[in-house]
Amino acid sequence: MTEQSRVLKKIALFGVGLIGGSFALGLKKAGVQAQIAGVGRSQASLDVALQAGIIDVIAASVQDACRDADLILIAAPVAQTFDILASILPYLEAHTVVTDAGSTKADVVSAARQALGDKICQFVPAHPIAGREQNGPQAALADLYAGKKLVITALPENSAQSVGLVEQAWRYCGAVIHHLQPAEHDAVFAAVSHLPHMLAYALVDDVANKAHAERLFQYAASGFRDFTRIAGSSPEMWRDITLANRSALLQELDSYTQTLERLRGHLLQADGAAIEAMYANAQRARHNWINSIETAEKQKVEGGD
Amino acid sequence: MTEQSRVLKKIALFGVGLIGGSFALGLKKAGVQAQIAGVGRSQASLDVALQAGIIDVIAASVQDACRDADLILIAAPVAQTFDILASILPYLEAHTVVTDAGSTKADVVSAARQALGDKICQFVPAHPIAGREQNGPQAALADLYAGKKLVITALPENSAQSVGLVEQAWRYCGAVIHHLQPAEHDAVFAAVSHLPHMLAYALVDDVANKAHAERLFQYAASGFRDFTRIAGSSPEMWRDITLANRSALLQELDSYTQTLERLRGHLLQADGAAIEAMYANAQRARHNWINSIETAEKQKVEGGD
Repeated sequence: MTEQSRVLKKIALFGVGLIGGSFALGLKKAGVQAQIAGVGRSQASLDVALQAGIIDVIAASVQDACRDADLILIAAPVAQTFDILASILPYLEAHTVVTDAGSTKADVVSAARQALGDKICQFVPAHPIAGREQNGPQAALADLYAGKKLVITALPENSAQSVGLVEQAWRYCGAVIHHLQPAEHDAVFAAVSHLPHMLAYALVDDVANKAHAERLFQYAASGFRDFTRIAGSSPEMWRDITLANRSALLQELDSYTQTLERLRGHLLQADGAAIEAMYANAQRARHNWINSIETAEKQKVEGGD
Repeated sequence: MTEQSRVLKKIALFGVGLIGGSFALGLKKAGVQAQIAGVGRSQASLDVALQAGIIDVIAASVQDACRDADLILIAAPVAQTFDILASILPYLEAHTVVTDAGSTKADVVSAARQALGDKICQFVPAHPIAGREQNGPQAALADLYAGKKLVITALPENSAQSVGLVEQAWRYCGAVIHHLQPAEHDAVFAAVSHLPHMLAYALVDDVANKAHAERLFQYAASGFRDFTRIAGSSPEMWRDITLANRSALLQELDSYTQTLERLRGHLLQADGAAIEAMYANAQRARHNWINSIETAEKQKVEGGD
């Protein structure tokens, strides 16, 4: 491969919803002149994306989308990764770099290896740490990724140039690039994202299934609202993520259940000191975390890194 | 008792922080002319409350605070209820109504019965469903209770007039009055408030105690932030609430743990349909709940009730 800080002339988006649409808008806002071609299962979404200036053209076919593409972004639920890559393979040109935006990485890498075979070197797995509760191209924002992390889980087969191209594209969107191994990525996000989603879904499900659910919801207030906000997310998308990250999630869930069992024991024994110690440890850790975020944001505003 | 829509001439506040302070500011904003006397353990908080116009005077003593008071509000952590009521008892005048703002009610009622004996008729237990993460008089807001629920768990001994006086005061603050039995109140808030606090504290504690906690917090994003917002609350206050509502909380915790165990089983068996069904049930229930809140708020804006 000979490209160096290659100019992006054509980008193909498989999925023009919130994630793919915001990527396109971010590039356009940064002045990237590439033609953006959209592919998707929903003609209505493609029409909205075209009208909104997210994509420049609706590709007539997968072949049409892949022709001359410098970069292909797959921005669809992770369970669709294999099928999409398999459909791309016959038309994948040697210079094209393919990346994704999936919330899990080990399963995506496995699907990509199966689908692409020895062209796996052209696939650079990635995950932007950003989102909204709304979905679809109408929810896309040019600033969705500004200041947010983009985690690349590069493969041994990837060339530095391929990885560099993906980094470059996301930097145009304002993202801050991080690198993790796929398994490391999945373990981290099992703990800080996927498990909280499971816990929130389980709480609302538990409350909703009680005989007096209506009365309970009547008195639920802002604490409940924020705690369960993530239970408003797409069930299909989160079913896929839960299954895809099963082993890491089971491990995190069991660790959490043990902590909860410990707290239950303190409560059973009315051990106020132990309860307060656990609450105080959590409050302190969260306080330090929020402070570190705010410090990082302040540095960003001041032009640091 | 002979009072009818009694004019509030003097109110004593035991606790001039967020909850008591916002009550005082709400009354003043509504044009209530009562003198508000403050009592508290912290001279600094009393000074701030006086400077901020929350209270009109710092009471020289409990006796001084109680003299001629029409209404006494106890706005302190629930574990202090007994001591405060016991200190009030010697100076409690026959026409005075005492109320509280505690997040649990069965234990408060029990403490009040012990402390007040046959003067229990003068104590009207209540709980405003509003709060902020900040504490202290500097966090008090005149609008904190506007449109929020105020739950009264009236006792058989309370006169209609005493209950009416408490209702009247909170209505001045913009609160919407609800009535529940104390045990009913505690069961409801165990499910929609106290349990979520325990779950959030437990998650942050679990993450913070891992060897690689720093890396985990580095990648935690907005979903984690909202889910754990309530774990930023005061450990002392929530220790008290957890202990005070122990039996209802154990019941809710066990129900939740069973739901979580069910979800774990689906995950273990990679049963995507069962996982999606649970997530979809939760999403739907939350969606309906948010819609009903928004409908209620719209009716309020339009002048309905």
